[in-house]
Amino acid sequence: MSARKSTTGSKPASTKSRITSKQATRSKAAKHNGKVHTIGSYLVQRLQDYGVTDLFGIPGDFVLQFYGMLEESPIRVVGTTREDNAGYAADGYARVHGLGAVCVTYCVGGLSLCNSIAGAYAEKSPVIVISGAPGMSERATDPLLHHRVKDFHTQRDVFEKITVATALLDDPMTAFLEIDRCLEACVRFKRPVYLELPRDCVHKQAVIPHVPDDSQPVSDSNALRESLAEAKELIEASKKPVIIAGVEVHRFGLREEVLGFAEKFKIPMCATILGKSVVSESHPLYLGVYEGAMGRSEVQKYVEESDCVILLGTFMTDINLGIYTAHLDPGKCIYATSEKLRISYHHFHDVIFSDFVTALEKQKMKVVTRKIPDNVRPQQLEFKVKPAQPVTTKHLFESINQILTDETVVVTDVGDCLFGAVDLMINTHTKFLSPAYYTSMGFAIPASLGAQVANQNLRPIVLVGDGAFQMTCLELSTALKLGFNPIVIVLNNKGYTTERFLQEGPFNDIPDWKYHNITDLIGGGWGFEVSTEGDLEKAIKAALANKDSLSVINVHLKPTDVSPALTRLADKMSKTL
Amino acid sequence: MSARKSTTGSKPASTKSRITSKQATRSKAAKHNGKVHTIGSYLVQRLQDYGVTDLFGIPGDFVLQFYGMLEESPIRVVGTTREDNAGYAADGYARVHGLGAVCVTYCVGGLSLCNSIAGAYAEKSPVIVISGAPGMSERATDPLLHHRVKDFHTQRDVFEKITVATALLDDPMTAFLEIDRCLEACVRFKRPVYLELPRDCVHKQAVIPHVPDDSQPVSDSNALRESLAEAKELIEASKKPVIIAGVEVHRFGLREEVLGFAEKFKIPMCATILGKSVVSESHPLYLGVYEGAMGRSEVQKYVEESDCVILLGTFMTDINLGIYTAHLDPGKCIYATSEKLRISYHHFHDVIFSDFVTALEKQKMKVVTRKIPDNVRPQQLEFKVKPAQPVTTKHLFESINQILTDETVVVTDVGDCLFGAVDLMINTHTKFLSPAYYTSMGFAIPASLGAQVANQNLRPIVLVGDGAFQMTCLELSTALKLGFNPIVIVLNNKGYTTERFLQEGPFNDIPDWKYHNITDLIGGGWGFEVSTEGDLEKAIKAALANKDSLSVINVHLKPTDVSPALTRLADKMSKTL
Repeated sequence: MSARKSTTGSKPASTKSRITSKQATRSKAAKHNGKVHTIGSYLVQRLQDYGVTDLFGIPGDFVLQFYGMLEESPIRVVGTTREDNAGYAADGYARVHGLGAVCVTYCVGGLSLCNSIAGAYAEKSPVIVISGAPGMSERATDPLLHHRVKDFHTQRDVFEKITVATALLDDPMTAFLEIDRCLEACVRFKRPVYLELPRDCVHKQAVIPHVPDDSQPVSDSNALRESLAEAKELIEASKKPVIIAGVEVHRFGLREEVLGFAEKFKIPMCATILGKSVVSESHPLYLGVYEGAMGRSEVQKYVEESDCVILLGTFMTDINLGIYTAHLDPGKCIYATSEKLRISYHHFHDVIFSDFVTALEKQKMKVVTRKIPDNVRPQQLEFKVKPAQPVTTKHLFESINQILTDETVVVTDVGDCLFGAVDLMINTHTKFLSPAYYTSMGFAIPASLGAQVANQNLRPIVLVGDGAFQMTCLELSTALKLGFNPIVIVLNNKGYTTERFLQEGPFNDIPDWKYHNITDLIGGGWGFEVSTEGDLEKAIKAALANKDSLSVINVHLKPTDVSPALTRLADKMSKTL
Repeated sequence: MSARKSTTGSKPASTKSRITSKQATRSKAAKHNGKVHTIGSYLVQRLQDYGVTDLFGIPGDFVLQFYGMLEESPIRVVGTTREDNAGYAADGYARVHGLGAVCVTYCVGGLSLCNSIAGAYAEKSPVIVISGAPGMSERATDPLLHHRVKDFHTQRDVFEKITVATALLDDPMTAFLEIDRCLEACVRFKRPVYLELPRDCVHKQAVIPHVPDDSQPVSDSNALRESLAEAKELIEASKKPVIIAGVEVHRFGLREEVLGFAEKFKIPMCATILGKSVVSESHPLYLGVYEGAMGRSEVQKYVEESDCVILLGTFMTDINLGIYTAHLDPGKCIYATSEKLRISYHHFHDVIFSDFVTALEKQKMKVVTRKIPDNVRPQQLEFKVKPAQPVTTKHLFESINQILTDETVVVTDVGDCLFGAVDLMINTHTKFLSPAYYTSMGFAIPASLGAQVANQNLRPIVLVGDGAFQMTCLELSTALKLGFNPIVIVLNNKGYTTERFLQEGPFNDIPDWKYHNITDLIGGGWGFEVSTEGDLEKAIKAALANKDSLSVINVHLKPTDVSPALTRLADKMSKTL
């Protein structure tokens, strides 16, 4: 897609906590001078160069040598209960910290990661997968070693389908370059990569001292100039411009640039559901989440009346677009992502996303200021407690909205906890994590672990359905071990409620556990069972006070009681089936 | 590998509960006459033809139409908490019943199955994977539908690496043949297959009435004759013949043939760890488990002194062979499996495993009878309870040995529960299930669910380490829902004990849960916490009496207290690292 030059041409990201290639290149230059690394020690060093301070996983015999090496490094290894949870945790960590890593053993470990890594791929979360593997000397006679599936390539073949780059680190002549290539790809494309390290290669030394390549891709300057000119023309001719900010604005560390652009030209902006909280939701130019018919109709109308929609870092997914109830005329759109740049019907190649966004902010333009009516702006949720009243989904979200602060991060799972959460007001940027595109049930609890490992001062408010809780709740054990204090709210509606709207059947029912009793099994934390608004208020207060441990609130809801957004979505989806 | 003819040439398997292709062909001939099927209804019908009466899985929007169809069929759908557990359950079901099936939604469901299906592939357990998928009409514009990873082929591409056949059922002209091809491959190769059913194809009708192809592969008669002659020559010339029966004897329903062969010629026999209980361990010709230096030395010596080792259906895996401490001279071996036939150094192609085994039994041969010394025969474990004595791993296995009956099935996980279980005496054939080759931690609890779904009268004795329990224990919820009564014994040694012998580090420690309190979370069953021999005795008695519900016994063990087999194995493996 892009040319390369050996001096760094792309602007470094402005947000300090984000990882950029340039940062890594800079720091490594100092550290690698003259030192002869082994394949294993180089990988440990490069992880640190890229700012990875924590890593998730479970050991196994094929990866024990590398675990031993990690143990002696400054990197903290966070053991999880299951590998797939390690994948979710690394994903959650990457979303907060900028880059995540997971380290597991061969096949039984690696193949257990497939779903969570596929989710990271789909939602552009940069996670480095490191897998131990049988030694190259053990493979010579093609033996049936334990954990082997078809042949010794199977696991890498699988990961080629769900990552952006893979490498087998079997040869000191190539392994160092391969590590550089994969880590660089992970950071550049914000997608997972896979590194397979045979156990007898961990201590193999470099043949010659290795110097990492620090070249960076650059935009085609003519294409960049012309795309900016056309964008400017479209915006200046417009009477009702609007910005839709997507998740890539966060992933590529371009929040300040996009905000600067919006503020400089006073252009109203909204976010997608996947990109929710990419800018603060209390910003005066902010409208709310745009998601076609699923979102608030005032926002939909305001956006779809626009004669110039500027989509920045937005995935055009079905759920982001309200299952295709969004109506955006491509002829009136500026659509810029890391993968595509389209101005009206003109496609531009070789323009780097960050170059385009950064330059857009610097343009000189006369832009019409469009008024934002009060009913379009995010609405404060009503809140009033009637102690004896059974809790409804609507009331639950109103209650949650009350406790959000700059120190909380909302991590939602899929189903109604995701749809209902759209209306929460997130005042600080990037305090909302969800798997809103890949929608993998079970994401929230392990991802909230990763988020808090990345920033222990961030208190996760975890919203999770009963079905999702049954999948990955045990990862709370690791939060307990680390002294974390997530507040987990279980929307206990006795089954896969989202599906009841599409096709009802006994397969949508699930057993009604005593979710709050998980604390008895894992041996710590507080549990609450809640049916009324009064109970809920007390439980939330107690959980907030329980600052040094986790809390689980089991909220009984009727199986048919759902958020208005889900009612609209299910109606739409049942027509698609 | 083999020719085909349209009349059935291969002998049907003799064990009634096993599924054979011929059975399916016969029954379907009656049922399919004249009926015009849809792709979905044909698949439901063929599952029944092959004897699948239960299926495991979790619904999702891309598979709901097919779930609706299953709900109206005689097939029971068993919902699980997680998809990977559905895979393990289908695997356990297949090991008992002969063929299993799992049905999930696209990507978030299917990719969560990778590890358990890879395990079924590695250990030859025939499992049919059915995945819902986006409709073909939805794919036309290549949209970013939820659950999608790279493109619409991703999931099938992944499953091609871990199954023996895959098909996309997108066209009524090919889908019926594809269903036949994949199910036939599943039964013939005893490996998983993958069927992807787009949601808008479930109700697509056959264009012409479909008649299944009932051709069966046949052996090359010349190759078969010559291989038998050479086998006979080797056996007759031998003074110390011995049989090693492997897991394929069970998978291909050849237990009676192998037993008949051994009995007719009075040849002593042993099993591999993966094939343990393929014949009754109290049979007078039975020696025990042969696994090189890991097994009992008397058995190793007896087998390795043989001048004619007849390996039937045995995988030559590292753990089966005691991490290569086995010493078998290929020149003195007859090695027959479904994939390979080798007599001394002669390889024969196109000889079907069951043809070879069946014909072997019918040979006329004079075979020298070799005495079996008493110390080679399986040893009764000593058993004596000292009430105040802390429980050791050795004592735990001696206790478990006391409660095994014809109605119990031992299902072990990996680690020391697998190695220690080798010395258990299994009196009825096929009452021991383990992932002894692929060694995927977390197998036992969901696999025991599958075993009991296949045969509710079978009471699972589930042996599981604390690490494995933390991975998949929640599937006990499904056992509770179904009124099952497994006895789950947790070898609680506070971490990944197997690994401590290879490389010790804090990464081998795991939190010490109150494992017995899982009953409080899932809302039923009995839990026991045990530290002394007296406690253990009482808990086991109570669990046995608790016939209509599940029991969990949390047995505290020292982190360093392990079975003798593990000590030997760890010693051997640490030299490989």
